[in-house]
Amino acid sequence: MEKLIRVMDEEMQAVGGQKVNMPSLSSAELWHASGRWDKMGMELFRLEDRHGKGYCLGPTHEEAVTQLVAAHSNLSYKQLPLRLYQITRKFRDEPKPRFGLLRSREFYMKDMYTFDASEEAARQTYKLVCDAYCSLFNRLGLPFVKVRAATGNIGGTMSHEFQLPADVGEDRLVLCPDGHFAANVETLNGEQTSCPTCGEKLTQTRGIEVGHTFYLGTRYSSISNAVFCSHENKPQLAEMGCYGLGVTRILAASIEVLSTEDNIRWPSLITPYQLCFIPPKRGSKEEEEGGALLDRLYNDLAEALPHLTGDSVLDDRTQLTIGKRLKDANKLGYPYVIVAGKRVCEDPPVFEVWNQNAGEVLFLTKEGVVELLSKAQVP
Amino acid sequence: MEKLIRVMDEEMQAVGGQKVNMPSLSSAELWHASGRWDKMGMELFRLEDRHGKGYCLGPTHEEAVTQLVAAHSNLSYKQLPLRLYQITRKFRDEPKPRFGLLRSREFYMKDMYTFDASEEAARQTYKLVCDAYCSLFNRLGLPFVKVRAATGNIGGTMSHEFQLPADVGEDRLVLCPDGHFAANVETLNGEQTSCPTCGEKLTQTRGIEVGHTFYLGTRYSSISNAVFCSHENKPQLAEMGCYGLGVTRILAASIEVLSTEDNIRWPSLITPYQLCFIPPKRGSKEEEEGGALLDRLYNDLAEALPHLTGDSVLDDRTQLTIGKRLKDANKLGYPYVIVAGKRVCEDPPVFEVWNQNAGEVLFLTKEGVVELLSKAQVP
Repeated sequence: MEKLIRVMDEEMQAVGGQKVNMPSLSSAELWHASGRWDKMGMELFRLEDRHGKGYCLGPTHEEAVTQLVAAHSNLSYKQLPLRLYQITRKFRDEPKPRFGLLRSREFYMKDMYTFDASEEAARQTYKLVCDAYCSLFNRLGLPFVKVRAATGNIGGTMSHEFQLPADVGEDRLVLCPDGHFAANVETLNGEQTSCPTCGEKLTQTRGIEVGHTFYLGTRYSSISNAVFCSHENKPQLAEMGCYGLGVTRILAASIEVLSTEDNIRWPSLITPYQLCFIPPKRGSKEEEEGGALLDRLYNDLAEALPHLTGDSVLDDRTQLTIGKRLKDANKLGYPYVIVAGKRVCEDPPVFEVWNQNAGEVLFLTKEGVVELLSKAQVP
Repeated sequence: MEKLIRVMDEEMQAVGGQKVNMPSLSSAELWHASGRWDKMGMELFRLEDRHGKGYCLGPTHEEAVTQLVAAHSNLSYKQLPLRLYQITRKFRDEPKPRFGLLRSREFYMKDMYTFDASEEAARQTYKLVCDAYCSLFNRLGLPFVKVRAATGNIGGTMSHEFQLPADVGEDRLVLCPDGHFAANVETLNGEQTSCPTCGEKLTQTRGIEVGHTFYLGTRYSSISNAVFCSHENKPQLAEMGCYGLGVTRILAASIEVLSTEDNIRWPSLITPYQLCFIPPKRGSKEEEEGGALLDRLYNDLAEALPHLTGDSVLDDRTQLTIGKRLKDANKLGYPYVIVAGKRVCEDPPVFEVWNQNAGEVLFLTKEGVVELLSKAQVP
């Protein structure tokens, strides 16, 4: 999760995002004002403090961030756009929490809120943030589709979802095979079977929603009076957008989408550990020399590729066979597994390297291992 | 806050800490079982989900972590000690939230929970974690005292607080000037005026509590039946400790303790930005050459000390005088402020460098600036 957050920070800050941290407890007044206290229904966790004042646990923060910006009474058009984001725990009283982190009542979300001086500028921001989301999923190596989506109780006039196609997904999508059209079926009026642009037959798939973008206009800024001082020196309502990414959900969805029946697969960039070292079995004839050579390989790697030192695991359960430990390593999803096997006693020593995401076994000298791993990225 | 969290991660992982992330919503059953549902009184935020099931918002996580460990039915003494920690938001319905982040109803806390095979081992763990806390405060350059403390509603048989002496502190402390004795007065029976070891007169001070350690014994493990399989192959209750550090509170307390009437001071290691660059005023005779030389200095620094590139701010409000911007920089607490002042047009160019934490102004060439800043640390 910390690696994924680092990648998100990079992408959000590359589009001018400034990181903030808003409270989980959000006052009932604020939600009454926006109308969402009632609209959210049972999904909102509600509570009272010792003085009987009402709160909800924030599922998203449109109300809170708009109030924050509205409190800056001297905001000038020169200070816009403002692109504020946080990566914090959110709360939703789900009727059916399920599939572990895919749908839980507490989860981590990256939520960005943008404030622009005009509709045109806000639409540019919208495009920029969507592009950052595409960049994120591309860097993670996750096949995704961006589809037209409904605005739901967030509101606004334009919305897209980022979906990972998967059988366990809860959303139904229709896609033009040539990429002209993609939508969540809940946005369609009646059944649509062919692409409105090219006429090709639309394919159907299920998807896991991992991101959602909204062009909000002045829906929230008009409620809290979030204004800036325009070029003409007049107060003007900020044009807003909001942009969510499911942090914990992306972790679970990645595994769901990339894994095979037998093996967990992580996006290499955010795998908990890149490397697993497996020394020889206790009592084997390679035990002593093989263990020492693997130690030396670790040290050489630490020198050549210092960013990987915190990303290595040594499976020192040498009472177990190499085969048993290799099987466990597959289940845990290390992208690279380095075994001191039978050929480690050759001159020069040869290591058995399982490049899991490529599905291949390589027999490499120390230099070969260093070269292979020089491609491994750590955010 | 992210820098402080990085330093805490380093210290906790250096003593074998493994980072976890526990839910904020904690079930009422768990808190009834420990007796704290009633004992915590009004401080606990309580709520119900859509099915009428009771929860609190976790102020600490003894119950939750003990249940987590108890769920591992095959835990062996070989796997102990377990040292689990998290850095998450905590909730307390404070009667009087005040002083901003010093006492708020939502705050970030680092909480570690340890599980040992014997009382002796647990006491070693206790010492180790206390030493890590000392190391943390030393690295931050914060004057602190470790005092005997009451165990309150957490329970256990031994407890210490880490306190930053400060007038606004809510705790009253007595200290032996030679360091033999230090206690929170609430732990004393009646008035104690001289050191029980050396007889010296105790001094009084107020303090801000920034850390708290507890030796818990089996208070919680006996409730959840958190057992491990002993050397003799018998189930045995784990000996526990818990250890808190106030993350957001340390931020506020640092400023409180280090700042002067006019200037904010941060611990250098966790200052939001290490450097502020102030180019010449618009229209001044140094404007063009000075601005270009400051740009070049930034590039040279970025090459020589790449870890500082994300730690630099350029104050490009060149419509303001250097003096006005310098004043703002003091208020914001950058440890180093680099001004392209009158002497920037000399050959070689001389920069005016305010080394705020040392309280000195230096006139340095490019090489001098690089040498000075090579001491600046970023976690």
